[in-house]
Amino acid sequence: MIPPDQHLQIGSLLFEGLDQIDLTGPFEVLSRIPNTTYRIYGKTADPVRDHRGLRITPDAAIADAPQLDVLHVPGGFGQEALMEDTVVLDWLRAQAGHARVFSVCTGALICGAAGLLMGRRATTHWASFHLLRYFGATPVNERVVIDGDWIFAAGVTSGIDGALRLAAELRGDDVAKGIQLYMEYAPEPPFNSGTPETAPAAVLQQARKAVAGMTAQREATAQRIATKLGIIVPTAAE
Amino acid sequence: MIPPDQHLQIGSLLFEGLDQIDLTGPFEVLSRIPNTTYRIYGKTADPVRDHRGLRITPDAAIADAPQLDVLHVPGGFGQEALMEDTVVLDWLRAQAGHARVFSVCTGALICGAAGLLMGRRATTHWASFHLLRYFGATPVNERVVIDGDWIFAAGVTSGIDGALRLAAELRGDDVAKGIQLYMEYAPEPPFNSGTPETAPAAVLQQARKAVAGMTAQREATAQRIATKLGIIVPTAAE
Repeated sequence: MIPPDQHLQIGSLLFEGLDQIDLTGPFEVLSRIPNTTYRIYGKTADPVRDHRGLRITPDAAIADAPQLDVLHVPGGFGQEALMEDTVVLDWLRAQAGHARVFSVCTGALICGAAGLLMGRRATTHWASFHLLRYFGATPVNERVVIDGDWIFAAGVTSGIDGALRLAAELRGDDVAKGIQLYMEYAPEPPFNSGTPETAPAAVLQQARKAVAGMTAQREATAQRIATKLGIIVPTAAE
Repeated sequence: MIPPDQHLQIGSLLFEGLDQIDLTGPFEVLSRIPNTTYRIYGKTADPVRDHRGLRITPDAAIADAPQLDVLHVPGGFGQEALMEDTVVLDWLRAQAGHARVFSVCTGALICGAAGLLMGRRATTHWASFHLLRYFGATPVNERVVIDGDWIFAAGVTSGIDGALRLAAELRGDDVAKGIQLYMEYAPEPPFNSGTPETAPAAVLQQARKAVAGMTAQREATAQRIATKLGIIVPTAAE
């Protein structure tokens, strides 16, 4: 826990084609942590569209961000375009040198492309889980993984759980509990279909088919980056 | 369930000062329901800021919306400004004459102000729950309440559960299960603090204090509207 009177700079990275709830789930929590400045940073200050079309505008461009205490990196298929974007990757590396990093979903792949995952225990969306090895990370199949100063949330809505864990780490359990109460976060999923382990086989098969193209593209990118980073990926029977 | 080949028009209302996850939680689900057109409608097409500052831009103005099959009404303190806005209330009434309505959080108060809650079983955020009576509704303390064609979700994050229920009603359980899997919605809240019934007493007391001003203002507005609607509110010992 950080002393309550220490002001914190929190920033989320926003980019074209992100999965909006990777940002907006955590936003609901992060924007309510006391004694913080929380802003959304884009590569430019221009509006972007999420993967399904929601239009969100950043507060400022990354070039205008201060050194952050907490850096939140969401995911979504738009992550592909950032994987070899040296401006964004340089910024992430510079920020991560001092900030706690909170990665959600395939935000982990962006962090990996910046060379920041080597030797870390990490997680990401189930469909990209096997790609973590390309970045030298140890994949951990848990919804939230804490590795030192880093917090990883698995896919999409897990960012809400990760953000509450982060709020507790930063400001103590009671602050996080208060935010949870405000958000009325006592989830009641109508089905038990939220993970590959629990979803009905036919639903899982259909979902894998739907993301197959995306996953193949992500894997090709990950392979290219692994070569650049000099990472030798063990040929797993995964 | 609606025939899969029947195209559906789905719309969310966006307004200044909404609680963004009331919109963005359901967005993640609604934007993935097959064979639909899903758009975000503002009073105008201008960008708005949510209660904590997130900048979102609608796809179009309400005046340009077609007759919707599903109308999603989020909440948040910005709801106050709509409670006596005849343009928005007229639009809601016209849409609700034909659409299924999905109310999230204090979106229920806006629907109530439009005179649409009379005789309905409904729910809303815990801090506004006692206000439902001003609109002639029967408050039901459940996370998701289905009353005929209407779906009510309680506070904030309950919109995700409500949207999955709605997806199942519209397109069948397997579609909803597939969306849930994609979203990796297998929540693991780090604390059991998501409702007034489960939150620690001190956390609840603090939260009630934090929202007291907002709740008082909402109650004054609700009283004024109840008088206008000719609703006699039983003096409950609630």
